[in-house]
Amino acid sequence: MPSVRLTSGEVIPVPQGSSLLEALHGAGVFLTAACGGAGTCGKCRVRVLSGEVSPPTPAERLHLAGEVADGLRLACQIAPLTETVELEIPRTSRAPEMRILEGGAPRSVPFLPNVKHRPFLWKRPGLKTPGSVFDQICRAIQARTDLKPDRAVLGVLAGGLEPEREYQATMVGDRLVAVEPVGPARRWLGAAVDVGTTTVVVQLLDLETGKRLATASAPNAQSRYGANVVTRIERALSDPEGLFQLQRSVRETVGRLIRQAAAEAGASPEEVYEVVLVGNTAMLHLYAGVSPRTLGEMPYLPAFRELPPLSAEESGLPIHPRGQAVLLPIVAGYVGADAVGAMLAAGFDEPFEGVRILADIGTNCEIVLQRGEEILVCSTPAGPAFEGGELSTGMAAGPGAVERVRLGEKVQVRTIGGAPPQGICGSGAIDLVAELVRLGIVDLSGRFQPRESLQGVLPEAVLSGLHDRPEPAFWIARRQDGRPVGLTQKDVRELQLAKAAVRVGVEMLLESLELRAEQVDQLLIAGAFGNYLSRENAVRIGMFPKIPLERIRYIGNAAIVGAQLALISTEMRQRAQQLARRAEHLQIATHPEFQMRFAEAMFFGDAVF
Amino acid sequence: MPSVRLTSGEVIPVPQGSSLLEALHGAGVFLTAACGGAGTCGKCRVRVLSGEVSPPTPAERLHLAGEVADGLRLACQIAPLTETVELEIPRTSRAPEMRILEGGAPRSVPFLPNVKHRPFLWKRPGLKTPGSVFDQICRAIQARTDLKPDRAVLGVLAGGLEPEREYQATMVGDRLVAVEPVGPARRWLGAAVDVGTTTVVVQLLDLETGKRLATASAPNAQSRYGANVVTRIERALSDPEGLFQLQRSVRETVGRLIRQAAAEAGASPEEVYEVVLVGNTAMLHLYAGVSPRTLGEMPYLPAFRELPPLSAEESGLPIHPRGQAVLLPIVAGYVGADAVGAMLAAGFDEPFEGVRILADIGTNCEIVLQRGEEILVCSTPAGPAFEGGELSTGMAAGPGAVERVRLGEKVQVRTIGGAPPQGICGSGAIDLVAELVRLGIVDLSGRFQPRESLQGVLPEAVLSGLHDRPEPAFWIARRQDGRPVGLTQKDVRELQLAKAAVRVGVEMLLESLELRAEQVDQLLIAGAFGNYLSRENAVRIGMFPKIPLERIRYIGNAAIVGAQLALISTEMRQRAQQLARRAEHLQIATHPEFQMRFAEAMFFGDAVF
Repeated sequence: MPSVRLTSGEVIPVPQGSSLLEALHGAGVFLTAACGGAGTCGKCRVRVLSGEVSPPTPAERLHLAGEVADGLRLACQIAPLTETVELEIPRTSRAPEMRILEGGAPRSVPFLPNVKHRPFLWKRPGLKTPGSVFDQICRAIQARTDLKPDRAVLGVLAGGLEPEREYQATMVGDRLVAVEPVGPARRWLGAAVDVGTTTVVVQLLDLETGKRLATASAPNAQSRYGANVVTRIERALSDPEGLFQLQRSVRETVGRLIRQAAAEAGASPEEVYEVVLVGNTAMLHLYAGVSPRTLGEMPYLPAFRELPPLSAEESGLPIHPRGQAVLLPIVAGYVGADAVGAMLAAGFDEPFEGVRILADIGTNCEIVLQRGEEILVCSTPAGPAFEGGELSTGMAAGPGAVERVRLGEKVQVRTIGGAPPQGICGSGAIDLVAELVRLGIVDLSGRFQPRESLQGVLPEAVLSGLHDRPEPAFWIARRQDGRPVGLTQKDVRELQLAKAAVRVGVEMLLESLELRAEQVDQLLIAGAFGNYLSRENAVRIGMFPKIPLERIRYIGNAAIVGAQLALISTEMRQRAQQLARRAEHLQIATHPEFQMRFAEAMFFGDAVF
Repeated sequence: MPSVRLTSGEVIPVPQGSSLLEALHGAGVFLTAACGGAGTCGKCRVRVLSGEVSPPTPAERLHLAGEVADGLRLACQIAPLTETVELEIPRTSRAPEMRILEGGAPRSVPFLPNVKHRPFLWKRPGLKTPGSVFDQICRAIQARTDLKPDRAVLGVLAGGLEPEREYQATMVGDRLVAVEPVGPARRWLGAAVDVGTTTVVVQLLDLETGKRLATASAPNAQSRYGANVVTRIERALSDPEGLFQLQRSVRETVGRLIRQAAAEAGASPEEVYEVVLVGNTAMLHLYAGVSPRTLGEMPYLPAFRELPPLSAEESGLPIHPRGQAVLLPIVAGYVGADAVGAMLAAGFDEPFEGVRILADIGTNCEIVLQRGEEILVCSTPAGPAFEGGELSTGMAAGPGAVERVRLGEKVQVRTIGGAPPQGICGSGAIDLVAELVRLGIVDLSGRFQPRESLQGVLPEAVLSGLHDRPEPAFWIARRQDGRPVGLTQKDVRELQLAKAAVRVGVEMLLESLELRAEQVDQLLIAGAFGNYLSRENAVRIGMFPKIPLERIRYIGNAAIVGAQLALISTEMRQRAQQLARRAEHLQIATHPEFQMRFAEAMFFGDAVF
């Protein structure tokens, strides 16, 4: 295979049919290429020092003119003709690297936002000025050749620009969306949004620096129409106004959070030019106003996987009137853009030497298996227990939630933010159930043992948490209003169902590639557990097969990290699309063995302490 | 230069940096390539019989799979690596040829409409069906890989299709716009529209066959806000509601004509999926609702030259709600899409061996000079005389208009359709003024001679047409209401101004390339003269320099022919864009010699009889 040698000494192979740009990006060497390799932006300039490459294309003649003679070329337009080509990459052609500092999976990505702005000085056109006012601006800002005028902007241009005055041009992708006099306080912002069934999170980013400015979250206002995806799908199908109501209420939540985050950052929501949304398949259908009917019946096909960007108006958001909202792509009916975001955050777009698993744990849990370039994904219905939902004293991971529990000589708990206990969240529940099993308070089948059988065996300070009525329960704390916090028999059952679902998914994925758990080199756990999740206890309760702890990492809310990556990097957006297209979906819930395997996985039988 | 040899024996050179598809199209060998060479439609299949071409690209691996081994390739993806490559073009890859039978410039173009439809059988998705409902339809209709779902269509898909039923998918470019049960009476129509300052013409075409179904025309309702471009620009700028009123009224005219043409064809306007509009620069700005301010002041720059397609809603037309309206591109402030349409109709997108001129004669007259691949264009203000406007008894070329005049032993006239005379149109006026000069009734400076000086020289039957009061005039007929039809002294002056404008434009273009009139191999005259224009008299009155008559052709209303070509062929649409971009615009009205040359050209001094 031909290859290029960089001045750094790095040698990068160029597969047949790939452009140099594709090969460089594949090897993690990122060039500025706003147009994604179409030859229209003219930014991916490289200098060929030795060796031969394919002849200059019309795009190169347009963008480089005489510079081709100096060896300057566009990486997106050339392929090597000789076995080795020596290449210099000018510093100005390199995309700066950007890191999203969040969760356990920070990765460096090329900073290539889709929203750009450039200042220019407007000169009075002369008699020889060719083309249109729009063309003159394109020349002044050295725009990509496929830039298109937004009609509202044409109104501004035709209305007249003042000669010798400085203006700012703002572009979203290949659209010129604003031309305004240079002002001191102007900002270019973007929002990453995770549309959860229960909770919506909005993060506001500065698209000039890639820095996060503010975060806001709130319950999804859709909840009033149903607690989970299934009830909302039913609502959308049964009530003629249902789909519209569901769409309106989630948009209201997102819009309110964008306003709130903008206020926190001292910005106007109209300074938000682009929004990247992730969410499960049903949430994105409802957001776009597309009936989720096919999601509610076998074989649970989504209506779409990719959607062209929504205009500001179509998105229903209070952003810049010519901004846009981009939905990350969907893989399948129950593997949504949130899973794609998580894959992106965890780097599943790059080949992995070995085997690794990503488990994005939520009400619906997506499990992804990667081996080399192969990607297999399934979804499994874990229920809301790990998010604190449907537990009698459960709550989401927020201030006052019990996130860690240890039953030693006495009951030890830690709450998020150190606040007085309000309830128990997923990571606390996993800790507590693991401890209850370890101490024999709950047996391997998940049943609470009678107090009598434990007396004398356990310290009284621990045993005092055990209660018999109205049903068996273990209380670890009391809220300020006197109500207890802990797990009941029913809660333990919910957690058993949840962990069994995850476990079966992991196992069936491994089996489909004839892999054993020991062969897993990396297990990444994502989810809304807050800051903390005990890997040890997650394995102890049998949520995962036995994998050495050092191979397990908790990476936090990876879906929204993926949305942020796609917001600051068009390269990551393309990779999300490729990931969604090449991920192979395995239907496990309809597998003939699923029910039996699920029942088996309910036991704490293989828990090891 | 490398070349390909077809099985027909034809040898076609492939310029550096061109794909095979581009080279074939450049040589007039048209392949089906719905995506325009992006590698997404997979239609431009060719078989390489001998020689080497560039290695398979990802697009080819996707579309051809194993067939690459049989030598099958996509012409848009390959370039020759050896000096000669032998190629077979399967019949299924060839675009059918289509001819617009209209005017004097019928040309064959590849039939590649942007609107397509395909039937498919909907099968109930199975457990292993990958992707989405949309993806399943894409597979069933073998859609181009970049097909995007329209959100309204997603609503239909998600609402549920009946298994084992036949549906029709309709696509406009890369958008899936409709999925409906196969019905007997469904049609796929398009409209070509010439938005003239005075008159709007709509032609309805069947996009399955390329045949014209109906034509409708009417005065542009904008006329109530001003008779010409200048007064309408003033209106748009002076009245805050002006732009909106002008936009609304022209849309109303076009919309009414589309309804009328559809009714004539027994169709519904909602069966119109695409509209291609030509018109002068000001008309297209007003149509799109873009202020024409910069057109009204030096250097008369348009705000835009190209505009993304307008959605049905943005277009304000009663077409299919997910159809679109495409504006052909503009060259300059006074060289509009009508001129580009005329260039397309006359074949100026193909290189010409020699020198030729196209004069599109209207109130604003565009003159195009082609030498080889070089294209130079200017505009010149001919005024409305040649369209019958501002002549005392003038009328547009329609039933009852005097279109031919001969002054022999007596006055001989012919009217359009043989109807009783109603007025005189451009071709009749040119004939009459030429005859008046030939007989000395009007002298070389354009002045009517006193009756006394002509008596005895001319037959009385001719002389009886000459009148002195209220101003000198020559009447050639009387309307049924008794009012005369002919030319007054003032009319002759208008015609002098008009012919001088055309003449100066032609001469200044020739001079800019240091060419003489004798070197012109072809002179094509386009315009709304109706069926007939006397080339002889056009030269006699000095509208054109002396060019042998056999080199002159009248090609009718070429602008709308160009719109039709762009409607039935995406290849022609691309060529229109290239034409508009590479045509060099020469400002002649601001040339220091213009006024003097114009005054000189007013004389009939070089008229030869």
